[in-house]
Amino acid sequence: MSIELWYWPDIPGRGEFVRLFMEGAEIEYEDMAREQDADALVEHMHALDGIRPFAPPYIVDGDLCIGQTAHILAYLSDKYGLGSGELETDLQLIQLQLDISDLISEVHSVHHPIASSLYYADQMDAAFERAQEFRANRIPKFLIHFDNAMAVHGGPYSLGQQWTHVDTSLFQVMEGLDYMFPNYMKKMQGTWANLEGLQAALPEIDGVADYLASERRMEFNEDGIFRHYEELDEQ
Amino acid sequence: MSIELWYWPDIPGRGEFVRLFMEGAEIEYEDMAREQDADALVEHMHALDGIRPFAPPYIVDGDLCIGQTAHILAYLSDKYGLGSGELETDLQLIQLQLDISDLISEVHSVHHPIASSLYYADQMDAAFERAQEFRANRIPKFLIHFDNAMAVHGGPYSLGQQWTHVDTSLFQVMEGLDYMFPNYMKKMQGTWANLEGLQAALPEIDGVADYLASERRMEFNEDGIFRHYEELDEQ
Repeated sequence: MSIELWYWPDIPGRGEFVRLFMEGAEIEYEDMAREQDADALVEHMHALDGIRPFAPPYIVDGDLCIGQTAHILAYLSDKYGLGSGELETDLQLIQLQLDISDLISEVHSVHHPIASSLYYADQMDAAFERAQEFRANRIPKFLIHFDNAMAVHGGPYSLGQQWTHVDTSLFQVMEGLDYMFPNYMKKMQGTWANLEGLQAALPEIDGVADYLASERRMEFNEDGIFRHYEELDEQ
Repeated sequence: MSIELWYWPDIPGRGEFVRLFMEGAEIEYEDMAREQDADALVEHMHALDGIRPFAPPYIVDGDLCIGQTAHILAYLSDKYGLGSGELETDLQLIQLQLDISDLISEVHSVHHPIASSLYYADQMDAAFERAQEFRANRIPKFLIHFDNAMAVHGGPYSLGQQWTHVDTSLFQVMEGLDYMFPNYMKKMQGTWANLEGLQAALPEIDGVADYLASERRMEFNEDGIFRHYEELDEQ
């Protein structure tokens, strides 16, 4: 039985972290709301009983319904035996995935510093200040952390020659930041060499290569998490 | 061998979620930076090798070093057999704990909407707007979600008569919101009856009662995550 993925159909967003991992690992899944529409997702989510996900993405695997991106990835990695097979390292990979979740939340609040319920246009001044601080302090702090982590097993992947859920997520982070802040990321080129190495190496994985060349791969856009607004980039 | 807890010594912050669970479960631990000071924490953190925590809190348990609050709690709950003993429910509890992490990040960004590196006084205008939106939309959305989850097993705890890491964390969330927004929370009294029931029931647990009466329990303060600024509360 294939995994059901439930996520908003028109943005890569957090769903893309789950999708990219399943594509790389060639796990069979159905992209439910893309086969139907956003209404089907809302309807499905409201019909769930018991302890429900707070928000998409979530997956349904037989009787199990699992929300929270990092949690989904830890579950799938474990189920399909795609971790290190060693407790200490597997815990560290989950920890890194949770660090990535924190970064992604901060990325979203760059263009929505006041309220996710308001339009970007209604919080542009605060977003401008927030973006400056984010580029100056937060991106370097997070990416140095991830770059160091990538060096631990020698690269190019998080476990050396073996890739994990951390690698597909960090690839998506680097692609997203390149889209969001092209000037800034170009200026910083070479600073996070291990992450750039990963970014180059990940598309060599068969499942990833097929996926990136397919229509299933969605482009970043200004309704998602990584958004390009020229005024928020390095000038 | 007891667990080492590493967290900033002068704020409850995220460390308190780990502390409260270990106290409730009567797990032996050492509160390392409170026995020493913040410098000892910084020094210890920088001396760690391999894949390191991004930020405190983290625990050291023999050879294992584990960061990220929700991850630490999932690990401890599993190690000491304090979950449901059933995969589906244990996964749901971790998922809820991750939802709590999301709420806590949003709580922090209420008083620091522009930059965590700037003082509150330098971002008060944005914080004022952010707080209004947070009270109007985000608190209700999160607390209704948690209130519904608490009803699933009949209460007063997340597994009915059995409490888990989710209960100590939701107790801390409710205490924190009462401290941060006393007028708002008073106005909303009765809206989240299951959470209020939990808030009343948790101090009846022996380990929790001992802890809350001890000097180990720290008061909320304006360097932590839940901060009381009168101007951010309901007027």
